[in-house]
Amino acid sequence: MNAPLTPQPLDAALLQQMADALRVLCADAVEQAKSGHPGAPLGMAEMATVLWSRHLRHDPADPRWPDRDRFVLSNGHASMLLYALLHLTGHDLPLEELRRFRQLGSRTPGHPEAGVTPGVETTTGPLGQGLANAVGMALAESLLAAEFNRDGHTIVDHRTFVFVGDGCLMEGLSQEAISLAGTLGLGKLIVLYDANGISIDGAIDDWFADDTPARFRACGWRVIDAVDGHDLLAVDAALTDAVTASRQPEAKPTLIVCRTTIGKGAAGHEGTADVHGAPLGRDGIAALRTTLNWPHPPFEVPDDLRAAWDARDAGAARRSAWHARFNAYAAAQPVLAAEFERRTRRALPTNWQARTDEAVAALAAQWVRDGKPIATRRASQLALNALAPLLPELFGGSADLTGSNLTDFTGHRRITPQHRAGNYLSWGVREFGMAAAMNGIALHGGFVPYGGTFLTFSDYSRNAIRMAALMEQRVIHVFTHDSIGLGEDGPTHQPVEQLAALRLIPNLDVWRPADAMECAVAWVQALQRRDGPSALVLSRQA
Amino acid sequence: MNAPLTPQPLDAALLQQMADALRVLCADAVEQAKSGHPGAPLGMAEMATVLWSRHLRHDPADPRWPDRDRFVLSNGHASMLLYALLHLTGHDLPLEELRRFRQLGSRTPGHPEAGVTPGVETTTGPLGQGLANAVGMALAESLLAAEFNRDGHTIVDHRTFVFVGDGCLMEGLSQEAISLAGTLGLGKLIVLYDANGISIDGAIDDWFADDTPARFRACGWRVIDAVDGHDLLAVDAALTDAVTASRQPEAKPTLIVCRTTIGKGAAGHEGTADVHGAPLGRDGIAALRTTLNWPHPPFEVPDDLRAAWDARDAGAARRSAWHARFNAYAAAQPVLAAEFERRTRRALPTNWQARTDEAVAALAAQWVRDGKPIATRRASQLALNALAPLLPELFGGSADLTGSNLTDFTGHRRITPQHRAGNYLSWGVREFGMAAAMNGIALHGGFVPYGGTFLTFSDYSRNAIRMAALMEQRVIHVFTHDSIGLGEDGPTHQPVEQLAALRLIPNLDVWRPADAMECAVAWVQALQRRDGPSALVLSRQA
Repeated sequence: MNAPLTPQPLDAALLQQMADALRVLCADAVEQAKSGHPGAPLGMAEMATVLWSRHLRHDPADPRWPDRDRFVLSNGHASMLLYALLHLTGHDLPLEELRRFRQLGSRTPGHPEAGVTPGVETTTGPLGQGLANAVGMALAESLLAAEFNRDGHTIVDHRTFVFVGDGCLMEGLSQEAISLAGTLGLGKLIVLYDANGISIDGAIDDWFADDTPARFRACGWRVIDAVDGHDLLAVDAALTDAVTASRQPEAKPTLIVCRTTIGKGAAGHEGTADVHGAPLGRDGIAALRTTLNWPHPPFEVPDDLRAAWDARDAGAARRSAWHARFNAYAAAQPVLAAEFERRTRRALPTNWQARTDEAVAALAAQWVRDGKPIATRRASQLALNALAPLLPELFGGSADLTGSNLTDFTGHRRITPQHRAGNYLSWGVREFGMAAAMNGIALHGGFVPYGGTFLTFSDYSRNAIRMAALMEQRVIHVFTHDSIGLGEDGPTHQPVEQLAALRLIPNLDVWRPADAMECAVAWVQALQRRDGPSALVLSRQA
Repeated sequence: MNAPLTPQPLDAALLQQMADALRVLCADAVEQAKSGHPGAPLGMAEMATVLWSRHLRHDPADPRWPDRDRFVLSNGHASMLLYALLHLTGHDLPLEELRRFRQLGSRTPGHPEAGVTPGVETTTGPLGQGLANAVGMALAESLLAAEFNRDGHTIVDHRTFVFVGDGCLMEGLSQEAISLAGTLGLGKLIVLYDANGISIDGAIDDWFADDTPARFRACGWRVIDAVDGHDLLAVDAALTDAVTASRQPEAKPTLIVCRTTIGKGAAGHEGTADVHGAPLGRDGIAALRTTLNWPHPPFEVPDDLRAAWDARDAGAARRSAWHARFNAYAAAQPVLAAEFERRTRRALPTNWQARTDEAVAALAAQWVRDGKPIATRRASQLALNALAPLLPELFGGSADLTGSNLTDFTGHRRITPQHRAGNYLSWGVREFGMAAAMNGIALHGGFVPYGGTFLTFSDYSRNAIRMAALMEQRVIHVFTHDSIGLGEDGPTHQPVEQLAALRLIPNLDVWRPADAMECAVAWVQALQRRDGPSALVLSRQA
């Protein structure tokens, strides 16, 4: 198991300087871009500094190391904060890229994009989705831990940290994510809420008066409330508490409510909506430097602070400690270790091609023998029955329509809060949450997720499907009841425009198999696809 | 004000027979259709009987009476329950239509459809949306009350009752609705939760473990918990309590948690998922009759129970009492009364055509004088400035992007929890909730709602836009930042497929004005449209 990460006693004065370095770097980059969101990075500077310098287990030299902690910036408009963190901790993101913030072709786009910037775990911006992605990541971690860890050999044990803002929590999607995480008891999920009380239209009291801690508690979360988000010691204590609690087998997911001031440090703009989405301007930047007593020119970070931020040595030590543990595991469990390695590498099993050819041929022979038409949803289930044994990483589910989508396969193992070692999840009536969490599972690695609902309700999850396409993630959507032929349920359930609308999403493969064989082939292609999601659009009737 | 509605002392034995009549009628109709959902109607029979016979203020002879209570069946798959209620209470829905349940061309389609069946207030089926529609209805009621009621003359004073199931509450949309209703203090909204613990995939504990009462309380609701949903006296007491509380000026919305057994009465099927969505079968129907000691043949309701259910006399009395109040109001406030009457009739103001022609001509002249291109989002705001004074029922808003969507107009009055007499709402970051609640506002009458967000995020609200199109409601969506030209925000915010995808939705008018004049004309057309929603797709840049 990962040893507690408290490498050095907390030096509050140094940490504050590190936070201010982060703050000014963000403000300078937004100013240079003449575009962007300075308010959230300034407000979250202390939260980010404490988390990234004292709790987040990562290695800047290898941002794909399987057992790294995940960090998700769900309020993605604060992207500059993440870029500054990646740069300062030593990721492959040079200062030059920070100067090119929000410019075409830079590795510092307006919102964080997975695959573009090393260390960015998921693409965020559409609010609420980062949190739901994180639920998928934490779920994947817990499933892999249940499947691969052995007594004395803990090779999967990492946390998923998320920053969320008020906007994320207003989105209904957040509720699907929160409810799932609480129900499933995803104890290694730790969310830091940047509670600044401001959204774009102003002070939120008139449109968002929820008692958010009570809402999370109602959904089975542990809440650390009323933390002063600018008090480095308080944030550190909360994170220490949360990380410690996450080691318990029955841990709940944790929410840390950090009360912050948007635009902290920007004299005259603190705590207002106007600092949310516009650069501070020349005078504002000057005032920030005065307030912080920061004499350094734009984009310059003093060497001592650079050294304090640099996480490469600590990261290398963490990663090599894990590799040592993994080697011991591999010696004791060579088959499991090889399988773990294959799955986290996203490689298909050996002989996949030959075995799937064989499986599909057997299905074809069976269907020819039977000689009668079957619904493609039924063909899909038969294909799953044949293919699932060949692909242990297959992870199925449905948004409460298992018996209609026919997404369960022979021998599937249901995941419940008590039984984590499974490969099938009833997601509940949460189409969007399912889709966004599946994106998180795919991003995490170790599983190939698919999930079902009615074609009409692809509308509910549509933006998450788009995000999978943007991120080029292997996520498979099973959309059954594909035509007005479903009849009696009426127009609310009859898809008309959905098939064509899905086909408009760039990089989404849409399959509408015309018979059982095409359905089987579509499944194989979707499972093999390396650069994006697929939608299988299937009929109810034969 | 409406006098308390407790016309007769509660006769529990009679009410139980009424509930059983309802139950058997629903089971018979589902059986006849060989398709449908018997479980929820059987489980909610007592809740429905108490509400409809003792608390709901309606008049079967005039289901459009403006001050009627609204009833929304958010778990729309229980449609047969609603049809049976409408039939038994005396709406224009003869028994013959119940026999044609779920048949093409019947007035009893698989899910309730507004405009098809008299007394159906909104189309439901896509889960969560009925609840959000109801929030819009309750909001419209409260805004109209603030605008039109005068001391001694209360002409707007009705409740919105909603049935929701577990599925509705799993949908994230429900959170947007709950949070809005709690924040705005919609005290005349009363939700009855059919807590049967079962959804299609089985017992919900493994995927929905929320403490739902605590969640609602966290969002500012009053909760009446742990009501036995099959105990007529308990349900009546809870409803009496809720209705009484709703008369207080500072009332909160109320949730009544009714613990029920799905399929109640269906021997061998009670409390199981298999009774959710399949007919009971010949044996099951026989067993139900035995359990209930119900000797009557299919579709036959004894005369004494028909008489007990018949709500026409009481409805006529209620409605004529309201008309008497309205006449007194009209005598005291003739201008207001005429305006109220016009707006609830959905008629445009007198001289609308001439005045809009004039306003548009003035805009055109101004734009020609200025002689420089402007962004269509800015043209939209100028058009709103010109048109809003002509249309008092205009109700604007934005999903937390007012300054970007430019959806506010000169002289708009912001709605807050403390100030209800307004015409502009900051909806918070709740695109789907905004769209679904706008549908409810339009269905309620008295307002023409429009709301803004970025075009990309039309994905979030897509199914509610579809529902407005299906229901032919005048709802206007303002989608700004219409092209990849928004640039720096990157692909998550850049619409690519959304314009084409919106154009696929049948009966949605999609306008993408090429210049300021086209934008003004599009606004006029959208405001005048009588048979469906419009989307105005607008540019950020000039």
